Amino acid sequence: CIPGKELYGLLSQGILERLDAGELVIGDGGFVFALEKRGYVKAGPWTPEAAIEHPDAVRQLHREFLRAGSNVMQTFTFYASDDKLENRGNKLTFTGAQINEAACDLAREVANEGDALVAGGVSQTPSYLSCKSEREVKAIFKKQMDVFIKKNVDFLIAEYFEHVEEATWAVEVLKETGKPVAVTLCIGPEGDMHGVPPAECAVRLVNAGAQIVGVNCHFDPLTCVKTVKMMKEGVEKARLKAHYMVQPLAYHTPDCSCQGFIDLPEFPFSLEPRILTRWDMHKYAREAYKAGIRYIGGCCGFEPYHIRAVAEELGPERGFLPAASEKHGAWGAGLGMHTKPWVRARARQDYWENLKPASGRPLCPSMSAPDHWGVTKGHTDLMQQKEATSQDQLKQLFNRSSSH
Amino acid sequence: CIPGKELYGLLSQGILERLDAGELVIGDGGFVFALEKRGYVKAGPWTPEAAIEHPDAVRQLHREFLRAGSNVMQTFTFYASDDKLENRGNKLTFTGAQINEAACDLAREVANEGDALVAGGVSQTPSYLSCKSEREVKAIFKKQMDVFIKKNVDFLIAEYFEHVEEATWAVEVLKETGKPVAVTLCIGPEGDMHGVPPAECAVRLVNAGAQIVGVNCHFDPLTCVKTVKMMKEGVEKARLKAHYMVQPLAYHTPDCSCQGFIDLPEFPFSLEPRILTRWDMHKYAREAYKAGIRYIGGCCGFEPYHIRAVAEELGPERGFLPAASEKHGAWGAGLGMHTKPWVRARARQDYWENLKPASGRPLCPSMSAPDHWGVTKGHTDLMQQKEATSQDQLKQLFNRSSSH
Amino acid sequence: CIPGKELYGLLSQGILERLDAGELVIGDGGFVFALEKRGYVKAGPWTPEAAIEHPDAVRQLHREFLRAGSNVMQTFTFYASDDKLENRGNKLTFTGAQINEAACDLAREVANEGDALVAGGVSQTPSYLSCKSEREVKAIFKKQMDVFIKKNVDFLIAEYFEHVEEATWAVEVLKETGKPVAVTLCIGPEGDMHGVPPAECAVRLVNAGAQIVGVNCHFDPLTCVKTVKMMKEGVEKARLKAHYMVQPLAYHTPDCSCQGFIDLPEFPFSLEPRILTRWDMHKYAREAYKAGIRYIGGCCGFEPYHIRAVAEELGPERGFLPAASEKHGAWGAGLGMHTKPWVRARARQDYWENLKPASGRPLCPSMSAPDHWGVTKGHTDLMQQKEATSQDQLKQLFNRSSSH
Amino acid sequence: CIPGKELYGLLSQGILERLDAGELVIGDGGFVFALEKRGYVKAGPWTPEAAIEHPDAVRQLHREFLRAGSNVMQTFTFYASDDKLENRGNKLTFTGAQINEAACDLAREVANEGDALVAGGVSQTPSYLSCKSEREVKAIFKKQMDVFIKKNVDFLIAEYFEHVEEATWAVEVLKETGKPVAVTLCIGPEGDMHGVPPAECAVRLVNAGAQIVGVNCHFDPLTCVKTVKMMKEGVEKARLKAHYMVQPLAYHTPDCSCQGFIDLPEFPFSLEPRILTRWDMHKYAREAYKAGIRYIGGCCGFEPYHIRAVAEELGPERGFLPAASEKHGAWGAGLGMHTKPWVRARARQDYWENLKPASGRPLCPSMSAPDHWGVTKGHTDLMQQKEATSQDQLKQLFNRSSSH
Repeated sequence: CIPGKELYGLLSQGILERLDAGELVIGDGGFVFALEKRGYVKAGPWTPEAAIEHPDAVRQLHREFLRAGSNVMQTFTFYASDDKLENRGNKLTFTGAQINEAACDLAREVANEGDALVAGGVSQTPSYLSCKSEREVKAIFKKQMDVFIKKNVDFLIAEYFEHVEEATWAVEVLKETGKPVAVTLCIGPEGDMHGVPPAECAVRLVNAGAQIVGVNCHFDPLTCVKTVKMMKEGVEKARLKAHYMVQPLAYHTPDCSCQGFIDLPEFPFSLEPRILTRWDMHKYAREAYKAGIRYIGGCCGFEPYHIRAVAEELGPERGFLPAASEKHGAWGAGLGMHTKPWVRARARQDYWENLKPASGRPLCPSMSAPDHWGVTKGHTDLMQQKEATSQDQLKQLFNRSSSH
Repeated sequence: CIPGKELYGLLSQGILERLDAGELVIGDGGFVFALEKRGYVKAGPWTPEAAIEHPDAVRQLHREFLRAGSNVMQTFTFYASDDKLENRGNKLTFTGAQINEAACDLAREVANEGDALVAGGVSQTPSYLSCKSEREVKAIFKKQMDVFIKKNVDFLIAEYFEHVEEATWAVEVLKETGKPVAVTLCIGPEGDMHGVPPAECAVRLVNAGAQIVGVNCHFDPLTCVKTVKMMKEGVEKARLKAHYMVQPLAYHTPDCSCQGFIDLPEFPFSLEPRILTRWDMHKYAREAYKAGIRYIGGCCGFEPYHIRAVAEELGPERGFLPAASEKHGAWGAGLGMHTKPWVRARARQDYWENLKPASGRPLCPSMSAPDHWGVTKGHTDLMQQKEATSQDQLKQLFNRSSSH
Repeated sequence: CIPGKELYGLLSQGILERLDAGELVIGDGGFVFALEKRGYVKAGPWTPEAAIEHPDAVRQLHREFLRAGSNVMQTFTFYASDDKLENRGNKLTFTGAQINEAACDLAREVANEGDALVAGGVSQTPSYLSCKSEREVKAIFKKQMDVFIKKNVDFLIAEYFEHVEEATWAVEVLKETGKPVAVTLCIGPEGDMHGVPPAECAVRLVNAGAQIVGVNCHFDPLTCVKTVKMMKEGVEKARLKAHYMVQPLAYHTPDCSCQGFIDLPEFPFSLEPRILTRWDMHKYAREAYKAGIRYIGGCCGFEPYHIRAVAEELGPERGFLPAASEKHGAWGAGLGMHTKPWVRARARQDYWENLKPASGRPLCPSMSAPDHWGVTKGHTDLMQQKEATSQDQLKQLFNRSSSH
Repeated sequence: CIPGKELYGLLSQGILERLDAGELVIGDGGFVFALEKRGYVKAGPWTPEAAIEHPDAVRQLHREFLRAGSNVMQTFTFYASDDKLENRGNKLTFTGAQINEAACDLAREVANEGDALVAGGVSQTPSYLSCKSEREVKAIFKKQMDVFIKKNVDFLIAEYFEHVEEATWAVEVLKETGKPVAVTLCIGPEGDMHGVPPAECAVRLVNAGAQIVGVNCHFDPLTCVKTVKMMKEGVEKARLKAHYMVQPLAYHTPDCSCQGFIDLPEFPFSLEPRILTRWDMHKYAREAYKAGIRYIGGCCGFEPYHIRAVAEELGPERGFLPAASEKHGAWGAGLGMHTKPWVRARARQDYWENLKPASGRPLCPSMSAPDHWGVTKGHTDLMQQKEATSQDQLKQLFNRSSSH
């Protein structure tokens, strides 16, 4: 039993009741990245077989997010569709159903420790990318959904879709369950991979039956908040109704292009200098709240302390602090008992809010150029070729001018 | 049972047998920082009462380091001396002995899962800083030591000492047990807080009976390796014999002064941009090995994947990979199955070795000025005062010159 | 007599004949900034009384630009309108007419040394900003124009206008002379200070009678090229005809907002780290050329070697190199005779093209936040006030939670 | 006649009288770099034939430094020894004597406009580097010296020596004239190219007869000041007497190694981001003054406004401002009449003193790794080779572990 259970807010209602009542819902963080660092997920395939192989590790991460203030335990089922798992190669000895079931059990076990909700999650499929038919793609989603219904999750999330069309198909499948459906695209302000703008994406998803819409992954918090605002404006302009949700990266990515952080040269193994501080998270939580978003969580890069920072920033609105705040002071207050006076002097809000943290890497830049072979590199080669010709002529001119 | 147990190297010997035989010993990472982010340790006091309050969380972190390649489970007893725990305030309801015992049990439980060794650890005390006598300070160390003997740890580590004198006292106490004794100071190339150079510190510690000497915490890996090299030269020049050990920060700190990262303005809540990548860890492990250091581990900031990177870099020397490498490819090989060709192109050593990762923070600098009230700030105020006078005269000159 | 006079291209035709014939015209650089550094212009007022006070200094700068490849000597008459000069305070003892005449004589003297053209220049007026009538503002322009006609300049440039309306008035006045008229706004892609987009600005200016349109100052080269492209598209869409001109800053300003570099905190006394290298200028010249711009020059920050780099990059297109290239090698070729082999190795194009030059300032950021009192700062204060309230509530929560 | 002539201080005495009287002497800036940018010197050879070819350009630069506050006009004779000029190639049609004479005439002409002193300068020779005998090297210096005596310069400077031995020879030659002799090495705190420490270098030079010793070029201002302090300590410890002089770079070079800025990858064509602001110059001037240095000037990168900033900072000590301050306000005071209130707010000392200027180059680092083929690059190749072997073994381990 976890101390401070009374702080979870004793929310026994469903996700829509909570949102309809104007309550804030705090999501959890990105399991695949966190568990990769802990040694249980392989970068590249990113599949969640650890739900069976290493249940203690997965359970522990759920608990940390619960303690940090999460109201939702998402099942650890990212990329757990059968077609994706088959791609995964020859070492996997579990069926998709087994993985999905184990993940549901772990999420439920921990959710019950704190009265959180369980959300079953599906994500984009290789089938869609390889141009399988709507029927085939929907069949993929249905297989995961069947497990979620069997395990009686509280609601469903379709997340990490680059194409609004596939997301719409997912929503249509999940709607059949009668459970509340949330859906988040991994897009930025420029819209989905076919160029459909965020506002139109949101309208399509609401029309397909989603009650909660938003974005997750691929971009940093403020970019994601901006994109959800565009979605909200679209939905309101279409005189539709929805709740809004955001689960961004915990990385600063001002330099990424329309495909997000995947195209940054640092993805996925050198993103460390970009990790948000807890104080960056305070700003994110406040901006998301001001934008009218009420389901606020995280994706890749979020560690439990990031969610704790969100829950602390929104403590006044929620009326309570998360359990993990027993090991944290407001705005660094814990430093008040440090022996060195200049460290004690850091125990205050304006210090941390205004600090511009150094990278400690003087040989590194502050931004990168996104990396696309098809586009940038080919283009550059071509340009260099052209310029080389022009430069040969230049050298001739210099030689001619020197021989005067 | 953890898969891949055969990979831990089946080391049934003690620490000195291993080092005497020329084997590499890989340490673990920094528990207080890692558990602060997971929600179980409070920054400021940094005490380890979670060993009793949240044993699952502590056990899980031990397991992750074991899986990542650690040969040693250090007891989670940092700052668990009675005098430090009393400072901790009114909420602590456990005795020091209880915390130290619980920590020993957790370390032993996990060590046995992988044939690792258990090391009992003591660290610097408030008693020394408040000028208590040698007898009083030694009594503090003895109380922790009594628990370590009762629980039969494999060897002892005195770590995180800013003053070689206190470290010497700790070694003298620990030596009474007959167990092997390692000792690490948290100093850089400029020496301890009284200005005793690393070479002399090492000689004193070896003379006090330590079999393993080195540094931990406070500085980045390459600075720590450099400092241990200075220690090694000192010991060899004195014709003594010792093994060498290094457990640095996982933060880049080229800008810190003699007191290390404590004085950086980012300590402890905005150090994120400084976190080492796994590839930085490869360089560290190689440099430490080339310097003749054979006990190579980590301190604050080290996460399990950092230790895995050390174990992978030294895989050829050890002859095996850690268990967690089942979820990792050599130099990003796992990306070889990514859908985007430009991400697949990152699955190679020279890509990651040469990448200069961007911070994503264009408004932030790459270095900070260390923060000392007594020294820098006071000095600056004084300088500004003096210059102000000179500037007043300057303004008079400008005015006079304008009125010509 | 300047060596290499034969290299100036013996262009005896007028500006429009040259542009109509598809020739490139290279402008000069920013006199007020260059002469401020040499000690002859005061930052703040930025007025050109040095044309009378220090004619040698002004003549020398003209000559350096001529030698660097400029085809146009702009009269040093920036901010030399009577209303601006009156603002300048009590030390000025020359009339506007005297300054404008002296500036014309200097420009003509040097232009004749190299067969360059002389362009008389007017710029935006305090009269417009203080809401004087169209008639009054036009009278201001007319006074400068009368001098230009008396001195028989070759063509006229209305430059540095933030408001297209005022620029239109200037064009209407200048058109009365029968001389060719060029006009450049100091705007970026977001348009003029009333929000008129670049395309529409250009159409209005062409309709007012300008034969050459474009932008100058306020933004870095690539932003200016982008803005002129938008102008060109507007003019072509309106089925009008014009020539295009660009005279940007020699500073990198990726972080500036719609008012350009004025709002950067570094303006005007700490812009050094932003100065473009000669190799940056090669890229600029190529991009401007590819965009169809044929009058390519510079504004604030341009030194003679920057214009030389433009002229060298476009050497193949022009068919000759500037006189100053006698003291320069293509792409650093002059280093070929350096004593150190690693410096000799820098004598090649790909070295300089790909170099990412370090700032040598590890305590400084790579970008700044633009500074607007009305907007940003007020807004921030308000935000901080609101958040402070919310944070007070947070502290109460922490206190309540601690007292459990 | 230059306005404000009365401000030059009417110093009619010689250099030693001035220094002996405790007066400050302000030097000038780096002619070869400034004239390279103006189009009159070729980077690589760096020879001063422009003294004959383009006397107006050289005279103008002298005047600007005089106006900025310089008390000394150094003859533009850098690298004007016969052996260096011969290296220069086939285009040079003047003898060394002709160039040295022309340079003396220009310096004297301008010095007389403001009561400045003329210093004849020699610098290190290719003859020394190619191991010519002491006799041969001294003969080279003597040829330049003969011109200086013929033209009756006020004193002599031997500058830019990497080897104290050659500098000593130069001093010995120059001493024969009976004129005062100053000597500056281009070294940093690590000493000359043979490892002779600054303190010992200074003692040798004073013993050879130099009355003024110090450093010039190769390092940034604060490094140079630090080096001169080491020289001063050496001289004082040897109970000798001398005056001290510093003429550093106007570039920030915290990252350079013992050979100085030559080894930075940005040398010489991409140093722009490193250029010091005028406010950096204030700090330099103050630090140099506090160190007891009384001859304070500049070398490569110094433009006239940099010297003006030195003269303004030391205005209170000198009792007057330079002529060029008529076009400058104390600490940006000229902005007080700017139209935008947030720009007006920058017209104050603490704003500019505390500003951390951004580079505007987010893709660039803040420091570079110095470039030495012999050392770094070869070493790196070797290391990479060794590590490659070790990495091959690692891949075998991964493969073996995957095939379990």
